[in-house]
Amino acid sequence: MNEKVFRDPVHNYIHVSSQLIYDLINTKEFQRLRRIKQVPTTAFTFHGAEHSRFSHCLGVYEIARRVTEIFEQKYAGIWNADESLLTMAAALLHDIGHGAYSHTFERLFATDHEAFSREIITSPETEIYNVLSQFSPDFPEKVASVINHTYPNQQVVQLISSQVDCDRMDYLLRDSYYSAANYGQFDLMRILRVIRPTAEGIAFERNGMHAVEDYIVSRFQMYMQVYFHPASRSVEVLLEKLLKRAKWLFKQDRYFFEKTAPNLLPFLQENFTLDDYLALDDGVMNAYFQSWMTAEDKILADLSSRFINRKLFKSVTFDGESQSQLYRLTDLVQSVGFDPEYYTGIQASFDLPYDIYRPEKENPRTQIEIIQKDQKLAELSTLSPIVKTLTGTSYGDQRFYFPKEMLHLNDLFAANKEIFISYTANDHFTPPVN
Amino acid sequence: MNEKVFRDPVHNYIHVSSQLIYDLINTKEFQRLRRIKQVPTTAFTFHGAEHSRFSHCLGVYEIARRVTEIFEQKYAGIWNADESLLTMAAALLHDIGHGAYSHTFERLFATDHEAFSREIITSPETEIYNVLSQFSPDFPEKVASVINHTYPNQQVVQLISSQVDCDRMDYLLRDSYYSAANYGQFDLMRILRVIRPTAEGIAFERNGMHAVEDYIVSRFQMYMQVYFHPASRSVEVLLEKLLKRAKWLFKQDRYFFEKTAPNLLPFLQENFTLDDYLALDDGVMNAYFQSWMTAEDKILADLSSRFINRKLFKSVTFDGESQSQLYRLTDLVQSVGFDPEYYTGIQASFDLPYDIYRPEKENPRTQIEIIQKDQKLAELSTLSPIVKTLTGTSYGDQRFYFPKEMLHLNDLFAANKEIFISYTANDHFTPPVN
Amino acid sequence: MNEKVFRDPVHNYIHVSSQLIYDLINTKEFQRLRRIKQVPTTAFTFHGAEHSRFSHCLGVYEIARRVTEIFEQKYAGIWNADESLLTMAAALLHDIGHGAYSHTFERLFATDHEAFSREIITSPETEIYNVLSQFSPDFPEKVASVINHTYPNQQVVQLISSQVDCDRMDYLLRDSYYSAANYGQFDLMRILRVIRPTAEGIAFERNGMHAVEDYIVSRFQMYMQVYFHPASRSVEVLLEKLLKRAKWLFKQDRYFFEKTAPNLLPFLQENFTLDDYLALDDGVMNAYFQSWMTAEDKILADLSSRFINRKLFKSVTFDGESQSQLYRLTDLVQSVGFDPEYYTGIQASFDLPYDIYRPEKENPRTQIEIIQKDQKLAELSTLSPIVKTLTGTSYGDQRFYFPKEMLHLNDLFAANKEIFISYTANDHFTPPVN
Amino acid sequence: MNEKVFRDPVHNYIHVSSQLIYDLINTKEFQRLRRIKQVPTTAFTFHGAEHSRFSHCLGVYEIARRVTEIFEQKYAGIWNADESLLTMAAALLHDIGHGAYSHTFERLFATDHEAFSREIITSPETEIYNVLSQFSPDFPEKVASVINHTYPNQQVVQLISSQVDCDRMDYLLRDSYYSAANYGQFDLMRILRVIRPTAEGIAFERNGMHAVEDYIVSRFQMYMQVYFHPASRSVEVLLEKLLKRAKWLFKQDRYFFEKTAPNLLPFLQENFTLDDYLALDDGVMNAYFQSWMTAEDKILADLSSRFINRKLFKSVTFDGESQSQLYRLTDLVQSVGFDPEYYTGIQASFDLPYDIYRPEKENPRTQIEIIQKDQKLAELSTLSPIVKTLTGTSYGDQRFYFPKEMLHLNDLFAANKEIFISYTANDHFTPPVN
Repeated sequence: MNEKVFRDPVHNYIHVSSQLIYDLINTKEFQRLRRIKQVPTTAFTFHGAEHSRFSHCLGVYEIARRVTEIFEQKYAGIWNADESLLTMAAALLHDIGHGAYSHTFERLFATDHEAFSREIITSPETEIYNVLSQFSPDFPEKVASVINHTYPNQQVVQLISSQVDCDRMDYLLRDSYYSAANYGQFDLMRILRVIRPTAEGIAFERNGMHAVEDYIVSRFQMYMQVYFHPASRSVEVLLEKLLKRAKWLFKQDRYFFEKTAPNLLPFLQENFTLDDYLALDDGVMNAYFQSWMTAEDKILADLSSRFINRKLFKSVTFDGESQSQLYRLTDLVQSVGFDPEYYTGIQASFDLPYDIYRPEKENPRTQIEIIQKDQKLAELSTLSPIVKTLTGTSYGDQRFYFPKEMLHLNDLFAANKEIFISYTANDHFTPPVN
Repeated sequence: MNEKVFRDPVHNYIHVSSQLIYDLINTKEFQRLRRIKQVPTTAFTFHGAEHSRFSHCLGVYEIARRVTEIFEQKYAGIWNADESLLTMAAALLHDIGHGAYSHTFERLFATDHEAFSREIITSPETEIYNVLSQFSPDFPEKVASVINHTYPNQQVVQLISSQVDCDRMDYLLRDSYYSAANYGQFDLMRILRVIRPTAEGIAFERNGMHAVEDYIVSRFQMYMQVYFHPASRSVEVLLEKLLKRAKWLFKQDRYFFEKTAPNLLPFLQENFTLDDYLALDDGVMNAYFQSWMTAEDKILADLSSRFINRKLFKSVTFDGESQSQLYRLTDLVQSVGFDPEYYTGIQASFDLPYDIYRPEKENPRTQIEIIQKDQKLAELSTLSPIVKTLTGTSYGDQRFYFPKEMLHLNDLFAANKEIFISYTANDHFTPPVN
Repeated sequence: MNEKVFRDPVHNYIHVSSQLIYDLINTKEFQRLRRIKQVPTTAFTFHGAEHSRFSHCLGVYEIARRVTEIFEQKYAGIWNADESLLTMAAALLHDIGHGAYSHTFERLFATDHEAFSREIITSPETEIYNVLSQFSPDFPEKVASVINHTYPNQQVVQLISSQVDCDRMDYLLRDSYYSAANYGQFDLMRILRVIRPTAEGIAFERNGMHAVEDYIVSRFQMYMQVYFHPASRSVEVLLEKLLKRAKWLFKQDRYFFEKTAPNLLPFLQENFTLDDYLALDDGVMNAYFQSWMTAEDKILADLSSRFINRKLFKSVTFDGESQSQLYRLTDLVQSVGFDPEYYTGIQASFDLPYDIYRPEKENPRTQIEIIQKDQKLAELSTLSPIVKTLTGTSYGDQRFYFPKEMLHLNDLFAANKEIFISYTANDHFTPPVN
Repeated sequence: MNEKVFRDPVHNYIHVSSQLIYDLINTKEFQRLRRIKQVPTTAFTFHGAEHSRFSHCLGVYEIARRVTEIFEQKYAGIWNADESLLTMAAALLHDIGHGAYSHTFERLFATDHEAFSREIITSPETEIYNVLSQFSPDFPEKVASVINHTYPNQQVVQLISSQVDCDRMDYLLRDSYYSAANYGQFDLMRILRVIRPTAEGIAFERNGMHAVEDYIVSRFQMYMQVYFHPASRSVEVLLEKLLKRAKWLFKQDRYFFEKTAPNLLPFLQENFTLDDYLALDDGVMNAYFQSWMTAEDKILADLSSRFINRKLFKSVTFDGESQSQLYRLTDLVQSVGFDPEYYTGIQASFDLPYDIYRPEKENPRTQIEIIQKDQKLAELSTLSPIVKTLTGTSYGDQRFYFPKEMLHLNDLFAANKEIFISYTANDHFTPPVN
């Protein structure tokens, strides 16, 4: 087919010259990603970050396309050209199972976006399955196994999932571009010139090590400054409380949800199909939240309204040693009239910027290998002082969330609120000494 | 209040140090703009352009803030500092009445976003009115009159609406940034340094004329290459046909819409309030379209599905002299089994890149004035050869839209389709000679 | 050889994987380009534009490398892969004969940078000749013939010299990047995807026409706003007067130049070799001008000092009809004590932004051809309204230069200067009516 | 005066509205900075980095202008507006004493650019002194004392010289822009919004800490990857050897230098004035080196030719423990016919990315202070985990330089060279075990 191009702000152009890839993009399952934001809660803090998973998935594909094109040209003996299309398809589809507000939704309704990804790819009812299986009958399974990390060729698996994979490279650049938090920028062009397939997987040439270092530092800074932003986490807390209330209320008033949230019913009654899942997206969910704003249940109505109109909870950090004292804050929130089950919450966010391979860990990381001049591999942190300083340590904080009304003293609860304020000076929880 | 900053990819930061502005941003009417895309049909072609009217309105405000700050500092005698806050509020709120898919929606349901803007600003029921009227009782009316062009001070009016206003300057930069079509970039910083209030309105210093020229050329290129893109216009045609079918069907089956599209009812029955209008947004509309995909009415179901899954109509350009022959194409579309009322359409897009003030015209333009070294004003096209070449001429084209199935020859209608194809070679309608 | 990369701000990286190209870069004749500014007089106005011809030549090479790589991959039947290295070498070396302040120097000393380019490439004494001839004995002549436009394959010739060639594309992007005048930016990546070899030369696919349009407009804007800047042209006038005085003085005092400007002697005595030419560069010339600042000849000393310390002439535009009246200004300059032969000058700058092929013209242009959907060629201005408006018309102005002392009224010549000022209001020469 | 603007690629525009600043820029001493590269040896590796100290000094001024403008507007009680012009003048002039290839030149000829800065500012013979003293008689001394760190107001001193000063902020951004090594980019706009004067000097608000962190990391990366690039350091080694040979030769053949390098004589005879110093610049020095390429002294001629034609020395790193074994390499270089005094060299480069104030150190650093929510100051590394990891540790390496001919085996010295190569595998010196 004639090459198609999609104008893209991150990669300038997305190039598609494979009919398979073009057909995958045009499936309804893939087009659905236009209606699911990449970082929906971040967009409440960084208003520019309104981009969808559709854009991100195209970007991951484009990086995979560039990498495999280079691999075919430069490393014909090590890289099997037959793997290129598989890599590109897996890159394009790696997030296909994501739904609206995935992370929170999964916790509340016990869904699993990875399982859905697998089902979308391998279920004969989907358009994606049909496109893939026309290419070859075992292609759906192969694509699913790459996303699943069970595909035998580690080169392919690591391009899709490792510490420097196509997914992470795109989302850092893209979230950075849209959020305007420039920390996420790194030198993709340089990385593309030094990435290499090896017998065991993927490695990077020594003369491009600085670009890899910079990528690690950029990722670290994006986590600290964008993904872990207290206000975005507040949106997550609010959403969790809101859905929790809906679940509780569903047991009392099923009819209300039949009327106001038909597509959510299968999840509330814990009996859903793939089609049920695909029928949900950000717009559908937000439409339901909007209709709940006038619910008779005051808590559901209030939380929905706070979410839709962005009246976020406030927060303070707290240390491990004072965690047992948090009941003091909870009690005060309750004393003012808020049900603490729905109006307070704890949110912890920690990131491990880099780690070496530690087989004893539950999810051991694939460490980053650098190819030295004599062609021997060396693990990144042995060569890079700055990565060494970041290796093996987690960074982040844990926060206690509460209604911002706790800080407004203009009502009859002012006395209690003053105590609350005295415990939360400087945005940090400091319980009284005894 | 302490200055608040919003990270913004176009202006780097949006600065808010006025409590009024901050409170306006936090109203539910303004937060609603997060759920309305700035260029919803363009996003189907330029996938990066997923930004909302919320971002754009913040951007227009920020440009107004910078301009009025400079006016206060440099032109204290000509610019009345009391107008600054009014200008900023009007800039922030100029699009507050926009709804989901505004342009198409207005045509179908006879709504008027400018009238809604006025109502949102001046109706005592809105949060926006309450914020504005707390500042001063006549402030809502003043803001509305600026947006309405009836405010006496032309300096303020022209900053909000003229050939080089804060609105256009933001949307060119922003749509360009998000769509990745760089043509829209121009030198805002330079324009901010040469823009000046005059006795009659707004003018630009001679030594910054090139930046204004470049802005005119950029705007022209954005219209030609982004806003008038045939695929985006195809989305508009599809949406129009879809809503037209819904209106027709509503007369046959009111219950269907009560069940599937409750918030649209007031518009279908042509009896709506401001609250009805504010309850609609992109997500709500898309949720309805998704539920219509399984409607019994085949045309509604099919058009909804084409819209949601992006199966767009194709198009050809046509000249004025062959317009009377378009029935040939329509007939062929019908012969293949498509109802031409819903499956064909005409869409014309023309832009006048620049014009001088022509009082005889219906909507005469406010021409761009350049302040020469001797302080006399000169109209831009008298000084700029490139603007002169663009003045007074409209550019664009008109297109005939049809289902892309007309180009697929693998069915029993192949003979008719071949005739269709022969009339539409090179994407241009060329009727047979006799 | 292993690919070498050069970090480049315009193209991100310059990639060299041909030993021939790498060896050419390392010749002393090519390294000499580091010491010659690309736009030496522009740098006096746009201080950032301090880049050398070395950077530019690498950039032209890189564009040629990308184009020919694409041609080899996509147009194997039309493009002969054997021409790729020739194209890249010609691109790299197209400016090799440029010297210090080339344009002015050539006028004064009757040198010809194109003839020098040819000689550097084909003279057995140069390192460049030796690198080229090791590749094949006729390679120097071939490269020279491409630069000379006499090579039979018009594809190669047009890549190096035509209205959209590698040279112009690099210098627009580069001069724009360094000068910070962003007008010169255009979408190189898009042009690279739509440029195609044809039987007759080079053409562009229809779907990339907007990028070519934008390139034409960008080039036009760069000429108007950067290359023709009055202050930069003032530097040229000053340099010309300075060298003219040196030539005159050389006839009176040969010894002075033997002592202060040894490498300039061959040119002053109009008897120079290639080695003489290569021994001159910006630094050498500036060193001579600095030593002339203390010359006994007051005019040479003063002009040198004005040049080195950037005390530029001022200027006014004038029309054709008032040109015959310019003697009035010249007389006034003389009346104040300046020798008008060295202290006044006329400088005309005009650019033809685009033209079709006009065989009757002296240097007919190779017009830009667009490949339509049916593969027929169409000349650009027949398809593009904006290019049509610019076709065949020259834009620019002519200016009269004079010492800025003419505008300072604090001396006994004030009366004459007042008359001068009255003739030059608004930076335009307006002679008295009679 | 009317505001003047200079287009600048780093800051977009340099704004000058003070006549004093404008006059300073137009002095011959400041215009001379156009002829002195900012990073002359780096330009041999990063060819884009051809910018001059003139551009950098304008940039430092512009940052100082923006900071002081903000200080005047926001911190009127803490910042004395009378200090603004002093700060801007000191920013503009802080590097005025730099000469051609300053760092190497100083080592060889015992000059001191800081002493020259002071002299240029305070000597009544300079144009700069005259401009400054017209403003007020003590202004030259005041400006000099700021640059000298002896001015009493630490706010002013720290803006010009501290761990986050205007100088460093400009050079990181500028060297990064021109070299295309994007590591040096950081969020200047954010830093400008959070920088604050305090009673003791300069501090940064807590909510902008991440921008300061990012600046520290960027600076670290620029040192590691740009400033300490082995090839650039090779240029420095070559230049040092070349000038060392000239000094030696001057004692044998004074006449040669009178003829070929008149402006260098005062330095060779160790008896120079300010005027002598100002008469040297990059172009003059390079002109001399070019003339030395044909010297009878083979070493001077060869080193000059290597420098001018960029035939650089190669290098290997070495550890402290093997330093005593470097004689093995030196001996081998000598055995092949190179005088090791001029053809080998050691170059060590180390950077301390950040440090707290340590009064016991010779040049204790002014630590970075963060203003917390309760307005108390906290030292940066106590709040920032990433800065903590970098505090107090130096990073870098030491290298042994030698002619690249040592690696070419095609001559009768091949046996010795093979031994040399065996000691320098992987670009690291590994002496034999015994």
